[in-house]
Amino acid sequence: MEIRVQGPAGPPAPVSVTMRTPGHDFELAVGFCLSERVVAGPDDVVTVEYCLRAEGPQEYNVVTVTTRVPVDLDAHRRLFVSNASCGLCGKTTLDQLEAVCSPVTSATSVSATALRAMPGRLRAAQAVFEATGGVHATGLFDPDGRLRVVREDVGRHNALDKVVGWAALSGQLPLFDAVCLVSGRVSFEIVQKAATAGIPVVGAVSAPSSLAVQTAERLGVTVVGFLRGDRFNVYSRPERVIAT
Amino acid sequence: MEIRVQGPAGPPAPVSVTMRTPGHDFELAVGFCLSERVVAGPDDVVTVEYCLRAEGPQEYNVVTVTTRVPVDLDAHRRLFVSNASCGLCGKTTLDQLEAVCSPVTSATSVSATALRAMPGRLRAAQAVFEATGGVHATGLFDPDGRLRVVREDVGRHNALDKVVGWAALSGQLPLFDAVCLVSGRVSFEIVQKAATAGIPVVGAVSAPSSLAVQTAERLGVTVVGFLRGDRFNVYSRPERVIAT
Repeated sequence: MEIRVQGPAGPPAPVSVTMRTPGHDFELAVGFCLSERVVAGPDDVVTVEYCLRAEGPQEYNVVTVTTRVPVDLDAHRRLFVSNASCGLCGKTTLDQLEAVCSPVTSATSVSATALRAMPGRLRAAQAVFEATGGVHATGLFDPDGRLRVVREDVGRHNALDKVVGWAALSGQLPLFDAVCLVSGRVSFEIVQKAATAGIPVVGAVSAPSSLAVQTAERLGVTVVGFLRGDRFNVYSRPERVIAT
Repeated sequence: MEIRVQGPAGPPAPVSVTMRTPGHDFELAVGFCLSERVVAGPDDVVTVEYCLRAEGPQEYNVVTVTTRVPVDLDAHRRLFVSNASCGLCGKTTLDQLEAVCSPVTSATSVSATALRAMPGRLRAAQAVFEATGGVHATGLFDPDGRLRVVREDVGRHNALDKVVGWAALSGQLPLFDAVCLVSGRVSFEIVQKAATAGIPVVGAVSAPSSLAVQTAERLGVTVVGFLRGDRFNVYSRPERVIAT
Protein backbone atom coordinates (compact mmCIF):
# COMPACT_ATOMS: atom_id res chain seq x y z
CA MET A 1 0.00 0.00 0.00
CA GLU A 2 1.28 3.42 -0.88
CA ILE A 3 0.72 6.21 1.65
CA ARG A 4 0.53 9.74 0.27
CA VAL A 5 0.35 13.02 2.08
CA GLN A 6 -1.32 16.08 0.63
CA GLY A 7 -0.85 19.46 2.25
CA PRO A 8 -3.02 22.57 1.73
CA ALA A 9 -1.13 23.32 -1.50
CA GLY A 10 0.51 21.16 -4.13
CA PRO A 11 -0.12 17.61 -5.33
CA PRO A 12 -0.10 14.55 -3.04
CA ALA A 13 3.37 13.09 -2.45
CA PRO A 14 4.12 9.47 -1.54
CA VAL A 15 5.86 9.01 1.82
CA SER A 16 5.91 5.22 2.08
CA VAL A 17 5.18 2.01 0.23
CA THR A 18 4.52 -0.78 2.69
CA MET A 19 3.80 -4.48 2.25
CA ARG A 20 0.69 -4.77 4.38
CA THR A 21 -2.25 -7.05 5.12
CA PRO A 22 -5.34 -5.30 3.66
CA GLY A 23 -7.83 -4.02 6.20
CA HIS A 24 -7.87 -0.96 8.47
CA ASP A 25 -6.00 0.85 5.72
CA PHE A 26 -6.99 4.31 6.91
CA GLU A 27 -5.78 3.49 10.43
CA LEU A 28 -2.50 2.29 8.94
CA ALA A 29 -2.04 5.47 6.89
CA VAL A 30 -2.84 7.81 9.77
CA GLY A 31 -0.91 5.71 12.28
CA PHE A 32 2.19 5.67 10.07
CA CYS A 33 2.04 9.43 9.53
CA LEU A 34 1.77 10.04 13.28
CA SER A 35 4.20 7.41 14.55
CA GLU A 36 6.85 8.46 12.02
CA ARG A 37 6.20 12.14 12.78
CA VAL A 38 5.29 12.94 9.19
CA VAL A 39 2.28 14.69 10.78
CA ALA A 40 2.67 16.38 14.17
CA GLY A 41 -0.65 15.35 15.71
CA PRO A 42 -4.10 13.92 14.98
CA ASP A 43 -5.61 17.41 14.73
CA ASP A 44 -3.50 18.04 11.63
CA VAL A 45 -5.24 15.25 9.71
CA VAL A 46 -8.16 16.58 7.67
CA THR A 47 -9.23 13.56 5.58
CA VAL A 48 -8.09 10.03 4.75
CA GLU A 49 -9.24 8.42 1.52
CA TYR A 50 -8.40 5.95 -1.21
CA CYS A 51 -6.98 7.49 -4.36
CA LEU A 52 -9.70 7.38 -7.00
CA ARG A 53 -8.74 6.30 -10.50
CA ALA A 54 -9.87 8.31 -13.48
CA GLU A 55 -10.20 5.12 -15.53
CA GLY A 56 -9.87 1.37 -15.12
CA PRO A 57 -10.90 -0.64 -12.06
CA GLN A 58 -10.65 1.11 -8.70
CA GLU A 59 -7.70 -0.11 -6.67
CA TYR A 60 -7.40 0.08 -2.93
CA ASN A 61 -3.64 0.20 -2.57
CA VAL A 62 -3.10 3.95 -2.45
CA VAL A 63 -4.30 6.02 0.51
CA THR A 64 -4.00 9.78 0.70
CA VAL A 65 -3.84 11.64 4.01
CA THR A 66 -4.78 15.30 3.66
CA THR A 67 -3.17 17.60 6.23
CA ARG A 68 -4.11 20.97 7.63
CA VAL A 69 -0.55 22.27 7.50
CA PRO A 70 2.24 21.80 4.95
CA VAL A 71 4.42 18.72 5.50
CA ASP A 72 8.19 18.81 5.10
CA LEU A 73 8.69 15.61 3.17
CA ASP A 74 12.42 16.17 2.78
CA ALA A 75 12.77 15.45 6.49
CA HIS A 76 11.36 11.96 5.88
CA ARG A 77 13.47 11.03 2.91
CA ARG A 78 15.28 8.34 4.87
CA LEU A 79 16.22 5.66 2.41
CA PHE A 80 17.76 5.62 -1.01
CA VAL A 81 18.90 9.18 -0.70
CA SER A 82 21.28 10.37 -3.35
CA ASN A 83 23.39 13.03 -1.70
CA ALA A 84 25.80 12.13 1.05
CA SER A 85 28.54 13.87 2.95
CA CYS A 86 31.34 11.34 3.14
CA GLY A 87 33.28 13.60 5.51
CA LEU A 88 30.60 12.85 8.08
CA CYS A 89 30.94 9.16 7.30
CA GLY A 90 27.22 8.56 7.04
CA LYS A 91 26.30 10.19 10.32
CA THR A 92 23.93 12.55 8.58
CA THR A 93 22.03 9.70 7.00
CA LEU A 94 22.10 7.37 10.01
CA ASP A 95 21.04 10.13 12.37
CA GLN A 96 17.92 10.71 10.30
CA LEU A 97 16.73 7.31 11.48
CA GLU A 98 15.78 8.70 14.84
CA ALA A 99 12.67 10.81 14.61
CA VAL A 100 12.15 13.72 16.96
CA CYS A 101 10.29 12.37 19.95
CA SER A 102 9.76 13.57 23.53
CA PRO A 103 10.21 11.15 26.45
CA VAL A 104 7.09 9.56 27.89
CA THR A 105 6.58 10.79 31.46
CA SER A 106 3.36 8.92 32.25
CA ALA A 107 3.06 7.61 35.83
CA THR A 108 0.93 4.67 34.66
CA SER A 109 1.88 1.36 36.28
CA VAL A 110 0.96 -2.23 35.46
CA SER A 111 0.88 -5.27 37.72
CA ALA A 112 2.77 -8.47 36.98
CA THR A 113 -0.57 -10.29 37.10
CA ALA A 114 -2.04 -8.04 34.40
CA LEU A 115 1.08 -8.46 32.24
CA ARG A 116 0.95 -12.26 32.49
CA ALA A 117 -2.69 -12.27 31.36
CA MET A 118 -2.07 -10.22 28.22
CA PRO A 119 -0.41 -12.76 25.85
CA GLY A 120 -3.32 -15.20 26.19
CA ARG A 121 -5.86 -12.47 25.57
CA LEU A 122 -3.96 -11.21 22.54
CA ARG A 123 -3.56 -14.70 21.12
CA ALA A 124 -7.29 -15.40 21.53
CA ALA A 125 -8.09 -12.26 19.52
CA GLN A 126 -5.70 -12.98 16.62
CA ALA A 127 -8.26 -14.13 14.07
CA VAL A 128 -5.99 -13.91 11.02
CA PHE A 129 -3.13 -15.70 12.78
CA GLU A 130 -5.56 -18.45 13.75
CA ALA A 131 -6.35 -18.94 10.05
CA THR A 132 -2.87 -18.47 8.57
CA GLY A 133 -0.17 -18.82 11.23
CA GLY A 134 1.65 -16.05 9.44
CA VAL A 135 0.80 -12.56 10.67
CA HIS A 136 1.85 -10.36 13.54
CA ALA A 137 -0.46 -8.60 15.96
CA THR A 138 -0.39 -5.67 18.35
CA GLY A 139 -2.85 -5.44 21.21
CA LEU A 140 -3.64 -2.30 23.17
CA PHE A 141 -4.53 -2.95 26.81
CA ASP A 142 -5.69 -0.98 29.81
CA PRO A 143 -3.17 -1.22 32.67
CA ASP A 144 -5.49 -3.68 34.44
CA GLY A 145 -5.16 -6.08 31.49
CA ARG A 146 -8.40 -5.41 29.62
CA LEU A 147 -7.91 -5.64 25.83
CA ARG A 148 -9.01 -2.45 24.09
CA VAL A 149 -8.19 -3.28 20.50
CA VAL A 150 -6.13 -5.71 18.44
CA ARG A 151 -4.80 -5.22 14.93
CA GLU A 152 -3.05 -7.81 12.75
CA ASP A 153 -0.68 -7.33 9.84
CA VAL A 154 2.00 -9.23 7.94
CA GLY A 155 4.36 -6.48 9.13
CA ARG A 156 4.79 -6.04 12.86
CA HIS A 157 5.38 -2.29 12.51
CA ASN A 158 2.18 -2.01 10.50
CA ALA A 159 0.20 -3.75 13.25
CA LEU A 160 1.36 -1.11 15.74
CA ASP A 161 0.70 1.69 13.23
CA LYS A 162 -2.86 0.42 12.82
CA VAL A 163 -3.36 0.52 16.60
CA VAL A 164 -1.97 4.07 16.74
CA GLY A 165 -4.19 5.05 13.80
CA TRP A 166 -7.21 3.50 15.52
CA ALA A 167 -6.47 5.55 18.63
CA ALA A 168 -5.97 8.70 16.56
CA LEU A 169 -9.20 8.30 14.59
CA SER A 170 -11.16 7.61 17.79
CA GLY A 171 -9.71 10.62 19.61
CA GLN A 172 -7.68 8.66 22.18
CA LEU A 173 -4.17 10.04 21.61
CA PRO A 174 -1.88 10.33 23.50
CA LEU A 175 -2.11 6.85 25.03
CA PHE A 176 -0.55 7.71 28.40
CA ASP A 177 -2.73 5.15 30.22
CA ALA A 178 -2.18 2.15 27.93
CA VAL A 179 0.04 -0.89 27.52
CA CYS A 180 0.76 -2.31 24.07
CA LEU A 181 1.76 -5.91 23.48
CA VAL A 182 3.44 -7.01 20.27
CA SER A 183 3.39 -10.63 19.10
CA GLY A 184 7.04 -10.72 18.07
CA ARG A 185 10.19 -8.85 18.94
CA VAL A 186 10.67 -5.25 20.06
CA SER A 187 12.73 -3.23 17.61
CA PHE A 188 14.07 0.29 17.84
CA GLU A 189 11.22 1.37 15.56
CA ILE A 190 8.55 -0.23 17.76
CA VAL A 191 9.81 1.69 20.80
CA GLN A 192 9.98 4.93 18.87
CA LYS A 193 6.49 4.51 17.43
CA ALA A 194 5.07 3.67 20.89
CA ALA A 195 6.78 6.68 22.47
CA THR A 196 5.46 8.97 19.77
CA ALA A 197 1.94 7.76 20.59
CA GLY A 198 2.61 8.30 24.30
CA ILE A 199 2.47 4.60 25.22
CA PRO A 200 4.45 4.11 28.47
CA VAL A 201 4.72 0.29 28.50
CA VAL A 202 5.59 -2.04 25.59
CA GLY A 203 5.31 -5.78 26.16
CA ALA A 204 6.45 -8.52 23.82
CA VAL A 205 6.27 -12.28 23.50
CA SER A 206 9.83 -12.33 22.18
CA ALA A 207 13.10 -10.42 22.62
CA PRO A 208 13.92 -6.73 22.39
CA SER A 209 17.03 -5.62 20.51
CA SER A 210 19.80 -3.89 22.46
CA LEU A 211 19.13 -0.70 20.50
CA ALA A 212 15.44 -0.94 21.40
CA VAL A 213 16.33 -1.12 25.11
CA GLN A 214 18.71 1.86 24.88
CA THR A 215 16.07 3.85 23.02
CA ALA A 216 13.38 2.88 25.53
CA GLU A 217 15.52 3.99 28.46
CA ARG A 218 16.07 7.35 26.80
CA LEU A 219 12.45 7.81 25.69
CA GLY A 220 10.98 6.79 29.05
CA VAL A 221 9.36 3.59 27.81
CA THR A 222 9.12 0.44 29.93
CA VAL A 223 10.00 -2.62 27.82
CA VAL A 224 8.89 -6.07 29.01
CA GLY A 225 10.10 -9.03 26.93
CA PHE A 226 9.77 -12.81 26.74
CA LEU A 227 6.26 -12.67 28.24
CA ARG A 228 5.71 -16.42 28.33
CA GLY A 229 3.80 -18.40 30.94
CA ASP A 230 4.47 -16.93 34.38
CA ARG A 231 7.78 -15.32 33.43
CA PHE A 232 8.88 -12.09 31.82
CA ASN A 233 11.92 -9.81 31.75
CA VAL A 234 11.80 -6.05 32.38
CA TYR A 235 14.48 -4.30 30.31
CA SER A 236 13.92 -0.59 30.95
CA ARG A 237 12.11 1.77 33.33
CA PRO A 238 11.11 -1.06 35.74
CA GLU A 239 9.39 1.37 38.14
CA ARG A 240 6.15 1.00 36.17
CA VAL A 241 5.90 -2.77 36.81
CA ILE A 242 4.32 -3.67 40.16
CA ALA A 243 5.20 -7.10 41.60
CA THR A 244 2.17 -9.07 42.78
CA MET B 1 24.57 0.07 8.67
CA GLU B 2 24.64 2.29 5.65
CA ILE B 3 25.49 0.69 2.30
CA ARG B 4 27.06 2.93 -0.31
CA VAL B 5 27.88 2.24 -3.90
CA GLN B 6 30.70 3.93 -5.75
CA GLY B 7 31.00 3.64 -9.51
CA PRO B 8 34.09 4.38 -11.64
CA ALA B 9 33.25 8.10 -11.50
CA GLY B 10 31.63 10.33 -8.93
CA PRO B 11 31.35 10.14 -5.13
CA PRO B 12 29.87 7.16 -3.24
CA ALA B 13 26.09 7.28 -2.92
CA PRO B 14 24.04 5.60 -0.18
CA VAL B 15 21.58 2.98 -1.41
CA SER B 16 20.30 1.61 1.89
CA VAL B 17 20.36 2.07 5.63
CA THR B 18 19.57 -1.18 7.38
CA MET B 19 19.17 -2.12 11.04
CA ARG B 20 21.51 -5.11 11.16
CA THR B 21 23.34 -7.37 13.57
CA PRO B 22 27.06 -6.51 13.23
CA GLY B 23 29.23 -9.19 11.66
CA HIS B 24 29.71 -10.32 8.06
CA ASP B 25 29.14 -6.71 7.06
CA PHE B 26 30.88 -7.05 3.69
CA GLU B 27 28.75 -10.09 2.83
CA LEU B 28 25.68 -8.09 3.77
CA ALA B 29 26.69 -5.14 1.60
CA VAL B 30 27.54 -7.27 -1.43
CA GLY B 31 24.54 -9.56 -0.93
CA PHE B 32 22.16 -6.61 -0.72
CA CYS B 33 23.58 -5.03 -3.87
CA LEU B 34 23.21 -8.31 -5.77
CA SER B 35 19.86 -9.49 -4.42
CA GLU B 36 18.31 -6.07 -4.99
CA ARG B 37 19.89 -5.83 -8.44
CA VAL B 38 21.77 -2.65 -7.61
CA VAL B 39 24.74 -4.50 -9.14
CA ALA B 40 24.18 -6.93 -12.02
CA GLY B 41 26.61 -9.66 -10.95
CA PRO B 42 29.50 -10.50 -8.62
CA ASP B 43 32.04 -9.71 -11.34
CA ASP B 44 30.97 -6.06 -11.20
CA VAL B 45 32.11 -5.73 -7.57
CA VAL B 46 35.68 -4.40 -7.36
CA THR B 47 36.16 -3.76 -3.62
CA VAL B 48 34.17 -3.72 -0.38
CA GLU B 49 35.41 -1.66 2.54
CA TYR B 50 34.46 0.32 5.60
CA CYS B 51 34.30 4.05 5.10
CA LEU B 52 37.34 5.56 6.81
CA ARG B 53 36.86 8.66 8.88
CA ALA B 54 39.18 11.62 8.44
CA GLU B 55 38.91 12.42 12.16
CA GLY B 56 37.34 11.02 15.32
CA PRO B 57 37.00 7.34 16.17
CA GLN B 58 36.63 4.90 13.30
CA GLU B 59 33.08 3.64 12.95
CA TYR B 60 32.06 0.41 11.32
CA ASN B 61 28.55 1.29 10.26
CA VAL B 62 29.21 2.48 6.72
CA VAL B 63 30.32 0.07 4.00
CA THR B 64 31.19 1.13 0.47
CA VAL B 65 30.91 -1.23 -2.49
CA THR B 66 33.01 -0.11 -5.45
CA THR B 67 31.70 -1.23 -8.82
CA ARG B 68 33.32 -1.77 -12.18
CA VAL B 69 30.45 -0.15 -14.09
CA PRO B 70 28.29 2.88 -13.31
CA VAL B 71 25.18 2.14 -11.22
CA ASP B 72 21.82 3.70 -11.98
CA LEU B 73 20.76 4.64 -8.48
CA ASP B 74 17.58 6.34 -9.66
CA ALA B 75 16.23 2.88 -10.49
CA HIS B 76 16.56 1.94 -6.81
CA ARG B 77 14.93 4.98 -5.33
CA ARG B 78 11.99 2.97 -4.07
CA LEU B 79 10.80 4.70 -0.96
CA PHE B 80 10.11 8.25 0.04
CA VAL B 81 10.10 9.42 -3.55
CA SER B 82 8.79 12.91 -4.08
CA ASN B 83 7.29 12.90 -7.55
CA ALA B 84 4.16 10.92 -8.26
CA SER B 85 1.78 10.52 -11.17
CA CYS B 86 -1.65 10.50 -9.57
CA GLY B 87 -3.27 9.62 -12.89
CA LEU B 88 -1.57 6.25 -12.63
CA CYS B 89 -2.81 5.97 -9.06
CA GLY B 90 0.52 4.88 -7.64
CA LYS B 91 1.17 2.10 -10.15
CA THR B 92 4.48 3.67 -11.11
CA THR B 93 5.70 3.62 -7.56
CA LEU B 94 4.27 0.25 -6.60
CA ASP B 95 5.60 -1.39 -9.73
CA GLN B 96 9.10 -0.34 -8.80
CA LEU B 97 8.89 -2.81 -5.93
CA GLU B 98 9.45 -5.71 -8.24
CA ALA B 99 13.05 -5.85 -9.36
CA VAL B 100 13.94 -7.26 -12.75
CA CYS B 101 14.62 -10.94 -12.25
CA SER B 102 14.70 -13.96 -14.57
CA PRO B 103 12.88 -17.17 -13.59
CA VAL B 104 14.97 -19.93 -12.02
CA THR B 105 15.05 -22.94 -14.36
CA SER B 106 17.27 -25.22 -12.28
CA ALA B 107 16.36 -28.93 -12.37
CA THR B 108 17.65 -29.44 -8.82
CA SER B 109 15.40 -31.58 -6.66
CA VAL B 110 15.30 -32.22 -2.91
CA SER B 111 13.94 -35.18 -1.01
CA ALA B 112 11.34 -34.92 1.73
CA THR B 113 13.84 -36.60 4.05
CA ALA B 114 16.47 -33.95 3.37
CA LEU B 115 13.93 -31.17 3.88
CA ARG B 116 12.81 -32.59 7.24
CA ALA B 117 16.41 -32.70 8.47
CA MET B 118 17.16 -29.06 7.66
CA PRO B 119 15.35 -27.18 10.48
CA GLY B 120 17.19 -29.13 13.19
CA ARG B 121 20.55 -28.55 11.52
CA LEU B 122 19.83 -24.84 11.09
CA ARG B 123 18.67 -24.49 14.70
CA ALA B 124 21.80 -26.24 15.98
CA ALA B 125 23.97 -23.75 14.09
CA GLN B 126 22.17 -20.60 15.32
CA ALA B 127 24.72 -19.46 17.88
CA VAL B 128 23.35 -15.94 18.32
CA PHE B 129 19.76 -17.16 18.66
CA GLU B 130 20.93 -19.62 21.29
CA ALA B 131 22.31 -16.70 23.30
CA THR B 132 19.58 -14.13 22.69
CA GLY B 133 16.38 -15.77 21.41
CA GLY B 134 15.95 -12.74 19.21
CA VAL B 135 17.58 -13.08 15.78
CA HIS B 136 16.67 -14.66 12.48
CA ALA B 137 18.83 -17.04 10.47
CA THR B 138 19.17 -18.28 6.92
CA GLY B 139 20.89 -21.56 6.17
CA LEU B 140 22.19 -22.64 2.78
CA PHE B 141 22.02 -26.38 2.18
CA ASP B 142 23.06 -28.87 -0.46
CA PRO B 143 20.04 -30.71 -1.87
CA ASP B 144 21.03 -33.78 0.19
CA GLY B 145 20.63 -31.75 3.39
CA ARG B 146 24.22 -30.85 4.20
CA LEU B 147 24.52 -27.36 5.72
CA ARG B 148 26.91 -25.19 3.73
CA VAL B 149 26.66 -21.94 5.68
CA VAL B 150 24.44 -20.17 8.17
CA ARG B 151 24.13 -16.46 8.78
CA GLU B 152 22.18 -14.72 11.53
CA ASP B 153 20.76 -11.22 11.70
CA VAL B 154 18.11 -9.25 13.55
CA GLY B 155 16.53 -8.74 10.10
CA ARG B 156 15.46 -11.83 8.20
CA HIS B 157 16.16 -10.20 4.83
CA ASN B 158 19.65 -9.31 6.03
CA ALA B 159 20.34 -12.94 6.99
CA LEU B 160 19.55 -14.01 3.42
CA ASP B 161 21.58 -11.12 1.99
CA LYS B 162 24.57 -12.26 4.07
CA VAL B 163 24.24 -15.77 2.65
CA VAL B 164 24.05 -14.40 -0.89
CA GLY B 165 27.04 -12.16 -0.20
CA TRP B 166 28.98 -15.11 1.23
CA ALA B 167 28.27 -17.06 -1.96
CA ALA B 168 29.25 -14.10 -4.13
CA LEU B 169 32.53 -13.46 -2.31
CA SER B 170 33.43 -17.16 -2.47
CA GLY B 171 32.65 -17.45 -6.19
CA GLN B 172 29.58 -19.70 -5.84
CA LEU B 173 26.89 -17.67 -7.61
CA PRO B 174 24.46 -18.55 -9.10
CA LEU B 175 23.24 -21.07 -6.50
CA PHE B 176 21.34 -23.36 -8.87
CA ASP B 177 22.16 -26.44 -6.77
CA ALA B 178 21.21 -25.12 -3.33
CA VAL B 179 18.28 -24.95 -0.93
CA CYS B 180 17.92 -22.06 1.48
CA LEU B 181 16.00 -22.30 4.74
CA VAL B 182 14.78 -19.20 6.58
CA SER B 183 13.96 -19.28 10.28
CA GLY B 184 10.78 -17.23 9.96
CA ARG B 185 8.25 -16.47 7.27
CA VAL B 186 8.70 -16.23 3.50
CA SER B 187 7.96 -12.76 2.16
CA PHE B 188 7.78 -11.49 -1.40
CA GLU B 189 11.24 -10.00 -0.90
CA ILE B 190 12.74 -13.31 0.31
CA VAL B 191 11.52 -15.06 -2.84
CA GLN B 192 12.82 -12.30 -5.08
CA LYS B 193 16.21 -12.24 -3.40
CA ALA B 194 16.50 -16.04 -3.63
CA ALA B 195 15.53 -16.03 -7.30
CA THR B 196 18.06 -13.32 -8.06
CA ALA B 197 20.76 -15.53 -6.52
CA GLY B 198 19.50 -18.50 -8.56
CA ILE B 199 18.27 -20.48 -5.53
CA PRO B 200 15.57 -22.92 -6.74
CA VAL B 201 14.11 -24.02 -3.36
CA VAL B 202 13.20 -21.83 -0.38
CA GLY B 203 12.17 -23.56 2.84
CA ALA B 204 10.76 -21.92 5.94
CA VAL B 205 9.82 -22.84 9.47
CA SER B 206 6.81 -20.54 9.27
CA ALA B 207 4.28 -19.34 6.66
CA PRO B 208 4.74 -17.76 3.24
CA SER B 209 2.61 -14.76 2.29
CA SER B 210 0.17 -15.10 -0.60
CA LEU B 211 2.21 -12.60 -2.60
CA ALA B 212 5.35 -14.64 -1.91
CA VAL B 213 3.68 -17.75 -3.34
CA GLN B 214 2.45 -15.89 -6.45
CA THR B 215 5.92 -14.46 -6.98
CA ALA B 216 7.56 -17.86 -6.46
CA GLU B 217 5.30 -19.48 -9.04
CA ARG B 218 6.21 -16.80 -11.56
CA LEU B 219 9.94 -16.80 -10.76
CA GLY B 220 10.23 -20.59 -10.80
CA VAL B 221 11.01 -20.95 -7.09
CA THR B 222 9.78 -23.88 -4.99
CA VAL B 223 8.46 -22.64 -1.64
CA VAL B 224 8.16 -25.09 1.25
CA GLY B 225 6.56 -23.74 4.43
CA PHE B 226 5.72 -24.80 7.99
CA LEU B 227 8.68 -27.21 8.06
CA ARG B 228 7.99 -28.59 11.53
CA GLY B 229 8.59 -32.14 12.74
CA ASP B 230 7.67 -34.57 9.98
CA ARG B 231 5.33 -32.22 8.18
CA PHE B 232 5.66 -29.43 5.62
CA ASN B 233 3.58 -27.73 2.94
CA VAL B 234 4.72 -27.19 -0.65
CA TYR B 235 3.24 -23.97 -2.04
CA SER B 236 4.79 -23.61 -5.50
CA ARG B 237 6.70 -25.61 -8.11
CA PRO B 238 6.21 -28.94 -6.27
CA GLU B 239 8.04 -30.91 -8.99
CA ARG B 240 11.35 -30.26 -7.20
CA VAL B 241 10.25 -32.05 -4.01
CA ILE B 242 10.71 -35.83 -4.11
CA ALA B 243 8.51 -37.89 -1.78
CA THR B 244 10.44 -40.49 0.22
